[in-house]
Amino acid sequence: MKQEIMEIALKRSIFIPSNELYSPTGGFYDYGYVGKALKRKLEDFWRKFFLKRDGYLEIESVYILPEVVLKASGHLSCFGDPVVECTKCKKKFRADHLLEEKTSGGFHDKRWEGMKPEQLTNELKQRNLKCPECGGALGEVGWFNLMFKTNIGPIEGTTGYLRPETAQGIFLNFQRIFRSHGSKLPIGIAQIGKSFRNEISPRQGLVRLREFSQMELEYFFNPNSPTHPKFKEVENEKFRVYTREEQKKGSERCVELTARESVEKKIVPNEIMAYFMAREMQFYTKLGIPYDALRFRHMLPEETPHYSGGNIDLEVKVSSGWVEVIGNAYRTDYDLRSHSKASGKDLSVLLEDGSKIIPHVVEPSFGVDRTLLCVLEHCYRKGGGAERRDWEWFDFPAFLSPFEVAVLPLMKKDGLDGKASEVAERLREEGFDVFYDETGSIGKRYARQDEIGTPYCVTVDYQTLKDETVTVRFRNDGKQAREEIQKLPEKLWLFIKGNKLCL
Amino acid sequence: MKQEIMEIALKRSIFIPSNELYSPTGGFYDYGYVGKALKRKLEDFWRKFFLKRDGYLEIESVYILPEVVLKASGHLSCFGDPVVECTKCKKKFRADHLLEEKTSGGFHDKRWEGMKPEQLTNELKQRNLKCPECGGALGEVGWFNLMFKTNIGPIEGTTGYLRPETAQGIFLNFQRIFRSHGSKLPIGIAQIGKSFRNEISPRQGLVRLREFSQMELEYFFNPNSPTHPKFKEVENEKFRVYTREEQKKGSERCVELTARESVEKKIVPNEIMAYFMAREMQFYTKLGIPYDALRFRHMLPEETPHYSGGNIDLEVKVSSGWVEVIGNAYRTDYDLRSHSKASGKDLSVLLEDGSKIIPHVVEPSFGVDRTLLCVLEHCYRKGGGAERRDWEWFDFPAFLSPFEVAVLPLMKKDGLDGKASEVAERLREEGFDVFYDETGSIGKRYARQDEIGTPYCVTVDYQTLKDETVTVRFRNDGKQAREEIQKLPEKLWLFIKGNKLCL
Repeated sequence: MKQEIMEIALKRSIFIPSNELYSPTGGFYDYGYVGKALKRKLEDFWRKFFLKRDGYLEIESVYILPEVVLKASGHLSCFGDPVVECTKCKKKFRADHLLEEKTSGGFHDKRWEGMKPEQLTNELKQRNLKCPECGGALGEVGWFNLMFKTNIGPIEGTTGYLRPETAQGIFLNFQRIFRSHGSKLPIGIAQIGKSFRNEISPRQGLVRLREFSQMELEYFFNPNSPTHPKFKEVENEKFRVYTREEQKKGSERCVELTARESVEKKIVPNEIMAYFMAREMQFYTKLGIPYDALRFRHMLPEETPHYSGGNIDLEVKVSSGWVEVIGNAYRTDYDLRSHSKASGKDLSVLLEDGSKIIPHVVEPSFGVDRTLLCVLEHCYRKGGGAERRDWEWFDFPAFLSPFEVAVLPLMKKDGLDGKASEVAERLREEGFDVFYDETGSIGKRYARQDEIGTPYCVTVDYQTLKDETVTVRFRNDGKQAREEIQKLPEKLWLFIKGNKLCL
Repeated sequence: MKQEIMEIALKRSIFIPSNELYSPTGGFYDYGYVGKALKRKLEDFWRKFFLKRDGYLEIESVYILPEVVLKASGHLSCFGDPVVECTKCKKKFRADHLLEEKTSGGFHDKRWEGMKPEQLTNELKQRNLKCPECGGALGEVGWFNLMFKTNIGPIEGTTGYLRPETAQGIFLNFQRIFRSHGSKLPIGIAQIGKSFRNEISPRQGLVRLREFSQMELEYFFNPNSPTHPKFKEVENEKFRVYTREEQKKGSERCVELTARESVEKKIVPNEIMAYFMAREMQFYTKLGIPYDALRFRHMLPEETPHYSGGNIDLEVKVSSGWVEVIGNAYRTDYDLRSHSKASGKDLSVLLEDGSKIIPHVVEPSFGVDRTLLCVLEHCYRKGGGAERRDWEWFDFPAFLSPFEVAVLPLMKKDGLDGKASEVAERLREEGFDVFYDETGSIGKRYARQDEIGTPYCVTVDYQTLKDETVTVRFRNDGKQAREEIQKLPEKLWLFIKGNKLCL
């Protein structure tokens, strides 16, 4: 993340390193009130865009899962990282990260992901890599599970883990939800919430967190008809695909395909995933991320789980490189089948024609924190004309802005502050997210609002006391219009709806 | 919880015991899609009612806290339960629960809460209580910490715990948020999220969960002016108070006081807490809980932490007795002072007059799951007139209903289903939470919607195909009106706004 954005984020209560008062714990960040508002609006928009519109269902399952569940899901054996210890100073390192850093590929080189410990040991030896701290010899690569472990029941309990993904809660509840919703396929079940990954040595600030938020959607369907009822709506929408061929060449070139072409060329496994990919493009561009900063990366065979019917990531280009924000995975019937086997319960469903099947699943899994990071990077603006040379602001779309409107008395005297409080109160009652601020010069207060991306500043001045009008200042050009207080709520709703950011 | 409500809750995807597929883990419940919608609406309403309107700030802090934080906050030494072991069968029990069950007070007898292990050992001995399982002799009472413990960093890490309350995250971030919000008191900072309590033997289903959701608000103020700017708005509002005197008498009598009187009589420590108490009454009655089923219980001295300036719970009467849904606590400057001492950081704030103080805190802490439980109990209806003898429904206020409207084709043929899908799609685009259902007889489908509290059912029938009208059926009287599709969104918004539940 750009240094200047990180500084605003800290100053303006967007992100705060957790436990900063003591010493910040690596891999943990809190959301301040500006960041939380942004996050809430992002999640609400996702809910509206992906769930409400298509009639998918949202659930909320627990964070602590007993071992039996994670054994069945495969996380107990597969959710880990390869670690190597220096034989001299005893420091421990991620084996794949050492290889990434010491070879030309750079951080986004994925070559080492998914390699087995033995292979990694060989790779390290072949390159004669040494301990980056003391230059000592490295030992054998080992494997560490990355789930946070705990005990359920403080006295004699059973082993539990913090969930590594929200998806398992959906599979566990699938049968009840399926039945209570009329026993029909397809059915979409989603969850927004935290997941946990006990990184060995977190780095990259907000990109790799030990506690992170996900928005996951599991789309259950009959494998004999892998189509989406709304595919037609998006089949001609275009997106950029970073193919396996280009990745192997080391090129950064993408091909542009329509949703339909991506299926025909067998890059995307079915119309369902292509449908979600097209929707994902619509979603991220609405968040303010340009088309050219988005690409779908076809995961390499070595990055794809054995049971997968196809994995495609959405990546966003930021200052530090390309960051994965969505994993689209065709999980087939793997999860339901695994839980069925481990629990001894039949998780197949009866279709209208009398046949029984275990549904297949396509899963788009969104990283909330990373998405917010990308939004901050792409909405950040500095300068802009002679008068705004040093100004910094976030060009958030109005619907996403943490506060929709700031109310500011020109001065904190002569009744201007009382009147401004009234205006703020009234807008709050109408449902707006209002920031009220009466401290400091009006110029500084505008600057403060720009820094948190507030699209509209309402100023109460001496004329207000005479004629019940206020000025509305637009964030992106700093220009102002005079409006009647009476009509303010309606006007502001219209501005937000139309994303009107300049006068 | 009443058995009949629990049955609907399971059948209709409100609550689901977690990991039911294997064997449900005690103290964990998932929210199905109906329950999650209800929970989301409750949380949104709280946000609007308590935060937005008064300009308080919401943050989101992490779930895993390092030991140093919880040592400073006092949770490491004080967040526990007394446990006693049977010397014969080695089973372990909550010492206070044994006393509760074996004495006349019943479950809501709070006499044993807060007693030290030595006292409890004496009380058990005096009553000659034996192991309830095998009749063996009980040993000495010990103390068990109830935080879920884990390790941060999978290799060599530091000890961490799942947070026992959301409040600590607010205290840890107080300084940054205070400064980024203009360094003014009072300031309200809130958090909605999960907290964890590793109960020894969870019971009572949903009342005592190991993973539960809280809505907590910390109101920071200058102890020299313990007033609330909006106290005047509520000073004459009445509520029922269950005084210490009546509790000691074993009576259930409450006194009715206005917010102002409760402060004057020194039951409530200051106007700030009284302000929140009045708002809490407004909030719970808006959720559909009757005034008479609500009481504020003045906590007994032995239930009140040593640093507290006063603790008052809001309790709701349900079928099993009175359940605490809010803890109002005057936490004084205890938390900021403790963290200041432990971290060596100065957490005092500079006031306008140049003096420095550590702010005091009044905290209303809401239990989300318990509130939902109370709402379910109080909104549950059965019967109602000759035609609806066996009907069950939830009389949720319209704004809280999981789905605002159901769209139902009269038959799944003749184009009725296609037309109904269109109507559903349109309402979804307008922002409604829509349940679309085309399976089964229309009567059964109405019953299904009643069971999840949907206030309006829109039915598409043969007349719809002729004149673009539909019927709107009202949940609470089952009566129907004919409306134009064109005007449907506006009409439905008006019904919801006016909470119109009968024709």
